[in-house]
Amino acid sequence: MLHKTSLETSYRDHLRVTADAVEAALDRVLPAPTGHHAVVAEAMRYAALGGGKRLRPFLVLETARMLGGDMDHAMTVGCALECLHVYSLVHDDLPCMDDDDLRRGKPTVHRRYDEAIAVLAGDGLLTHAFELMASEGAHIDPAIRARLVLELARASGTNGMIGGQVVDITVAENERDTALITQLQAMKTGALIRFATKAGGLISGAQPHDIAALDRYSDALGLAFQIRDDILDVEGDAALVGKAVGKDADLGKATFVSLLGLDGAKEKARQLGETARAALAPYGEKAQALVGTVDFVLERQH
Amino acid sequence: MLHKTSLETSYRDHLRVTADAVEAALDRVLPAPTGHHAVVAEAMRYAALGGGKRLRPFLVLETARMLGGDMDHAMTVGCALECLHVYSLVHDDLPCMDDDDLRRGKPTVHRRYDEAIAVLAGDGLLTHAFELMASEGAHIDPAIRARLVLELARASGTNGMIGGQVVDITVAENERDTALITQLQAMKTGALIRFATKAGGLISGAQPHDIAALDRYSDALGLAFQIRDDILDVEGDAALVGKAVGKDADLGKATFVSLLGLDGAKEKARQLGETARAALAPYGEKAQALVGTVDFVLERQH
Repeated sequence: MLHKTSLETSYRDHLRVTADAVEAALDRVLPAPTGHHAVVAEAMRYAALGGGKRLRPFLVLETARMLGGDMDHAMTVGCALECLHVYSLVHDDLPCMDDDDLRRGKPTVHRRYDEAIAVLAGDGLLTHAFELMASEGAHIDPAIRARLVLELARASGTNGMIGGQVVDITVAENERDTALITQLQAMKTGALIRFATKAGGLISGAQPHDIAALDRYSDALGLAFQIRDDILDVEGDAALVGKAVGKDADLGKATFVSLLGLDGAKEKARQLGETARAALAPYGEKAQALVGTVDFVLERQH
Repeated sequence: MLHKTSLETSYRDHLRVTADAVEAALDRVLPAPTGHHAVVAEAMRYAALGGGKRLRPFLVLETARMLGGDMDHAMTVGCALECLHVYSLVHDDLPCMDDDDLRRGKPTVHRRYDEAIAVLAGDGLLTHAFELMASEGAHIDPAIRARLVLELARASGTNGMIGGQVVDITVAENERDTALITQLQAMKTGALIRFATKAGGLISGAQPHDIAALDRYSDALGLAFQIRDDILDVEGDAALVGKAVGKDADLGKATFVSLLGLDGAKEKARQLGETARAALAPYGEKAQALVGTVDFVLERQH
């Protein structure tokens, strides 16, 4: 038990140290605010800097570490992916979408600046993600860079993340069954989680069987993350979760808890954790950080 | 004179036939509307199909033809560029930006669908542009594909097209001088015109001196296009221009005509035409279509 606690502590330390390193790297690679258009770079920095777990860059970095990839490349790829993730938050927060006033405890971009700048800052982050991914910092081999761009565009496009957001804002709650919310999660958040480990693999010379194992791992991890989110909304401590709990049930939202029951959702999350761990079993000790992420996702209180 | 008229006629025929071919290619490469998220692919098709001069794909295609490049690659690259251009129109038309109700004579995407779908369809077109550019259809050599992605991201990013839009919506008319509106044009529309000929060159094995000539040509062409736009707003025939004329002066807009005078603007456009033609003089007859574009831009009535 002491051993487990200290492993957990060391995992959380590692996650926090990595998040700090990602923050510093983002600060370096984001455009500098200059000229008459400085405000858009300022808004991009406002959105991207100052917190967040940086789970997606962490997955890129730890996959590359597991497979012996170049960590500088992994950091650039992780920053590109984080720019893309942040763009999706900025646009999802817009008044015409989720109309959110707060994000990570501070005003959303359209509240701090205005709607036009929020749209343009999102567009800028999306474009910058591809600029970073196609740059030599992402990989020395241009064939890998072109592949990363293609995979990121597919994961984040209309049959991936964007499509998931469309489903989320257009399909009524009472028309959602377990199959639909599973598909929604796979598109809206799962596709980028899957891309994170695939990208870590691609820059590290991963073979097809490695990519297949990483896909199994990240698909299970991404779904477990969503189910844990739904569980926390029911039994989480509002102070720890950092937002109101019980909100989903109040809104009549179709969640894994409302569709499977609390015990059913917990069992499903547990099984997914097993699937994720099993996928990386062949990598032994080298998979420690990625396996630690499974425990982190399943046990997190916020 | 007869010769000139028939050359002009043949140029306009060629432009129209090319626009039809681009339309057909876009129809093939845009995502198909399927699944619960079909509406976003429908909105992307609504925005991208059904007209437009397709000047940017035309420049990619004719540059590739001049330099002996593969025309299938040029069409894919031209379609990617057009997707990016159309995304910028969809987002610029949004209520929080220019708040336009009509585009090419039909309701804008946010009027036909809604604002959320317009934001997401724009995001989808932007993402799809990079997917196409990184695909094997754009070029057989992945190093060229990675370069195309990098150049497109730079041209359309915060120090290019997005930055130009930021300047356009944030700098007051009475603070704009000739230097500022020249810079604004170079960023907002010039960067993509420059990318068009550069991309046509890159997929055709262009050497640095070719790229330099193409840059001189497209920079002059892009600025001449904007000046001609400003002239048409003053002396154009509303029926031919297809929109209200005299609008800029009524709004107190700083244009090349208001800053240089009508004669000054015409002389500037004429000089830019000379610069563009001179840049392509070394290519002789092979540059016929690109030189014809200079005449088209300077003489167009709409």
